[in-house]
Amino acid sequence: MGSVYCALVHHPVVDRQGEEVTTSVTNIDVHDIARSARTYGLRGYFVVSPIEAQHLVVQRIIDHWCSGAGKERFPERGEAIALVRLAGSIEEAIASIEAAEGDPPRLVVTSARSGPGRSSYPEEQARCRTQDRPTLLLFGTGHGLSDSVLQRADAFLEPIEGPTEFNHLSVRAAVAITLDRLFAGKSLVNDPI
Amino acid sequence: MGSVYCALVHHPVVDRQGEEVTTSVTNIDVHDIARSARTYGLRGYFVVSPIEAQHLVVQRIIDHWCSGAGKERFPERGEAIALVRLAGSIEEAIASIEAAEGDPPRLVVTSARSGPGRSSYPEEQARCRTQDRPTLLLFGTGHGLSDSVLQRADAFLEPIEGPTEFNHLSVRAAVAITLDRLFAGKSLVNDPI
Repeated sequence: MGSVYCALVHHPVVDRQGEEVTTSVTNIDVHDIARSARTYGLRGYFVVSPIEAQHLVVQRIIDHWCSGAGKERFPERGEAIALVRLAGSIEEAIASIEAAEGDPPRLVVTSARSGPGRSSYPEEQARCRTQDRPTLLLFGTGHGLSDSVLQRADAFLEPIEGPTEFNHLSVRAAVAITLDRLFAGKSLVNDPI
Repeated sequence: MGSVYCALVHHPVVDRQGEEVTTSVTNIDVHDIARSARTYGLRGYFVVSPIEAQHLVVQRIIDHWCSGAGKERFPERGEAIALVRLAGSIEEAIASIEAAEGDPPRLVVTSARSGPGRSSYPEEQARCRTQDRPTLLLFGTGHGLSDSVLQRADAFLEPIEGPTEFNHLSVRAAVAITLDRLFAGKSLVNDPI
């Protein structure tokens, strides 16, 4: 099984009206998604934002929990936050994975909207198990990833559906459920980081 | 299938040292768990805190999204937040469910720790499907529900495990994954609220 990474994308994403925008990084996304990524054995979690000032904020979070006062009090939090990587763009995240793994990742995109050509969770789970190439799971903030991102993907996961028609999970919940559906189970562990 | 409710418990829970404490309500827990509860067809989501001042904070969130300016801008957010109920204690939540449903709920507790007597997700899913009685799923903040709560439960769910030994998911992620494991699938929908 190839290494798996995830990315939380702040640009390019769309707003409520479908316009392409850049969203803000939020502290809780960094923490919650790092903890989920660590639980499910991911090799890294990219926070993708073109705004340099926001990289400084994320870097302060990383420093606090991985080497600062936070590490002393809650060492397991630092263990999760150590997965966080900064990238100015999706391309930068891809290049960083290729540099670490020797191969560029397969791009797997997610959306709350259904449509043609979606992969089921069991299908994508099987691909992750049998692929040697790394995989990068892309999650959009705001109202989701831009079409320009969706169109270049190697796989497009089906939306998470509960028993109702309501499809407005938080991105933190969506990442947690997606990782659980794809990677729950002891047999799938990546090598220790 | 009986109605299903969840509760996020701020007291009695334990801290890192196992001492019984009361934690603070956080805005993001109200939002994220309401959105997950709405997605998976739950009938209500209790925020359990003995601190009256915190009820006022949650009530302001409810008012903003269910009848205030938030409702105008993001009506689907209000649809989720409308599930939020305030309770001063677990007993109050139980009494409220009994008043609404005619029967007291089965209490199902959760913990990140493994141990004897845990129910698997398929077992608990089957019980929820076949029971007429309502069910109340209890989630602890801090370092988890107090023993006094765990010991009175009708069922104790197994911890969420990924392929690693790391068991420090956020409570928001844990609720999302638990609801997905128990209630994903169109056939399980509760009646409209």
